[in-house]
Amino acid sequence: MREVGIVGVGMTKFGVLGRVTSRELATTAAREAMEMANIKREDVDAIYNGILSPDIFEHQMHSAPGIPDYLGLNNIPSTRVEAACASGGLAVMQGIISVASGLYDTVVATGSEKMTNLPTSHVTEALAMCADDVYEVSLGITFPGAFAMVARAHERKYGTNAEMRAAVAVKNHKHGLHNPLAQFQKEITIEKAMNSLMIADPLTLYDCSPITDGAAAVVIVPWEKAKKMDGPKMKVSSFAQASDTMSLHDRPDITGFKTTQVAARKAFERANLKVTDIDFVEVHDCFTIAELVALEDIGFFEKGKAGSATLAGDTTRGGYIPVNISGGLKSKGHPIGATGVSQVVEVFKQLNGMAGQRQLKDVNYGMTQNLGGSGSTIVCHIFERGD
Amino acid sequence: MREVGIVGVGMTKFGVLGRVTSRELATTAAREAMEMANIKREDVDAIYNGILSPDIFEHQMHSAPGIPDYLGLNNIPSTRVEAACASGGLAVMQGIISVASGLYDTVVATGSEKMTNLPTSHVTEALAMCADDVYEVSLGITFPGAFAMVARAHERKYGTNAEMRAAVAVKNHKHGLHNPLAQFQKEITIEKAMNSLMIADPLTLYDCSPITDGAAAVVIVPWEKAKKMDGPKMKVSSFAQASDTMSLHDRPDITGFKTTQVAARKAFERANLKVTDIDFVEVHDCFTIAELVALEDIGFFEKGKAGSATLAGDTTRGGYIPVNISGGLKSKGHPIGATGVSQVVEVFKQLNGMAGQRQLKDVNYGMTQNLGGSGSTIVCHIFERGD
Repeated sequence: MREVGIVGVGMTKFGVLGRVTSRELATTAAREAMEMANIKREDVDAIYNGILSPDIFEHQMHSAPGIPDYLGLNNIPSTRVEAACASGGLAVMQGIISVASGLYDTVVATGSEKMTNLPTSHVTEALAMCADDVYEVSLGITFPGAFAMVARAHERKYGTNAEMRAAVAVKNHKHGLHNPLAQFQKEITIEKAMNSLMIADPLTLYDCSPITDGAAAVVIVPWEKAKKMDGPKMKVSSFAQASDTMSLHDRPDITGFKTTQVAARKAFERANLKVTDIDFVEVHDCFTIAELVALEDIGFFEKGKAGSATLAGDTTRGGYIPVNISGGLKSKGHPIGATGVSQVVEVFKQLNGMAGQRQLKDVNYGMTQNLGGSGSTIVCHIFERGD
Repeated sequence: MREVGIVGVGMTKFGVLGRVTSRELATTAAREAMEMANIKREDVDAIYNGILSPDIFEHQMHSAPGIPDYLGLNNIPSTRVEAACASGGLAVMQGIISVASGLYDTVVATGSEKMTNLPTSHVTEALAMCADDVYEVSLGITFPGAFAMVARAHERKYGTNAEMRAAVAVKNHKHGLHNPLAQFQKEITIEKAMNSLMIADPLTLYDCSPITDGAAAVVIVPWEKAKKMDGPKMKVSSFAQASDTMSLHDRPDITGFKTTQVAARKAFERANLKVTDIDFVEVHDCFTIAELVALEDIGFFEKGKAGSATLAGDTTRGGYIPVNISGGLKSKGHPIGATGVSQVVEVFKQLNGMAGQRQLKDVNYGMTQNLGGSGSTIVCHIFERGD
């Protein structure tokens, strides 16, 4: 496989965006990424789009050809991939594979979702369809319930308590203050988070990421080509994907996700890197407990230690490992298909000194972990500075 | 890119299959393909699944991890791709790219759909969501209506009439007689087809493919590996994908699909072959007019000539170019996500002398054309004998 790089990124505001389609959002993000990369429209060989359910949110299937259509790029291949909340990460990965293979020279990978057309209860019901319909959804489970079970199990085994979970939300809201594209720019306190509305015991409102519209995009080219380009860039060090049982009850242990463990290990092996080489990480904090579990599964902390580390400030700016400097899903928002791509956008901005007030110093390697369903799909990427 | 081959195929019965999920159907087809290829479960590196809408048909999103789950292959990557009725062909293509890239050595590409849970009117409404929701679906279009417009335009420009369209249905039903996995084994007559229920003027019932459950699967490996394997095999000569505007009204001409023209031309170029090198073809006859348009767009016949050629018997067994020997979508059935994979299954069986009573003689090159939406996505493959 050829080495591959990213040479431009784009991202819309994340939030409640009103009367706009995911197709328009994806087009906006893609255009911004293409402008940053300084590539012409006719240079784009193919598009990949990660999106969860244009079917249910927008009464539109077969959404991928709409993006080149609106970009004036008709006739190039445009492919939709769906892996629940990992759809965006997977679109980036399929784009990388297609460039690494030698098939395409310039690919735009986008992620998008327009969720706020539906009432919250309908969105929650729709998202639940990413769990196992046969054994879980039909019995009434939704994702707050699934992750509440993970939180309970983790609390029983390791003592990870409400304060530790709240510390994740407080930290990510603090980070999001400096991200103008984030859905929320609003600090919260441990007390406020712990005393917020109970959603699925023990998870409260501030343990949960919001419902969001938005899109993000990246431009992928062979590294040989990227090196010759003047603009910002980063190299793809490695990527990996893993799957697990659809149902939580089929797994021996739900205090961690084996998919994250497998995908992260593969990503480290393929990049010939260790966890200690990573300078910052964007992980999938759909719920606060998911961030803690991800940090343990990747190996930044021993099992059961991420909660106290978060309380101690180890995962904030200037800490041992800065986590979700973008604000994470919690504060940046979680437009399902866009999330995994927006993680890559954040790594790109940090590695190129483009992160404004939230810029980290001396960062060489950034990592992403994007989760789908109850961890039934995980996609991890590692990137390195391109200069 | 590495050269790639296919070394095993599987396919369930196509039809109204009762109380079974698409996950079970895909698993069944995948297992059959793996058995034919004589590979062990632990040899499978990744799965791709083409499926249109488990969301709407089965209340299940994020369906791809369910397949390795049921196969006992947990933790390998499993990716869903969706491109309307071209989802299956696209799953095969993504599988080919991932093996050609060097990333994976053994990939199972599956296609599946369980459609008959819903009443016919609901299925038609769901399928319509593959057209442009903004400009077409919101105004009441469904696919019989869209292809009726294509048929009208083709009739006005080239004189392609009801008898010519009926001849496609008669021929495909005749071919399907010898396919035990086809939904229908039933001969019809030109008169019966022309006098059947009017669905969307000028298309009658027998101009339309049916609503179907089913799955198909293929095993993809590097050609270097395939050559050393004892069982049946075929080589991937080339593949190509193209997109077009979502809406029909945005195209200068609807008597053909530019996507088919572009994808077929690329496929011929990449394989260094001409249309006259192809011995038989499986094209996407979702409606009879679609088969005629596809044959002209690929280049088997001049524009406007496929109808009279079909009436003259040029597209049947023993004719100039045997088309849809499997029975095509019309007789074999059209379980959306499975269709594109089942086309590849038919080419494999023909090239390996495994097609039973419908076996063609002296065939070296077979081609597939899989269409999504109103031709907004096309995927073409060319395959050659592996012995």
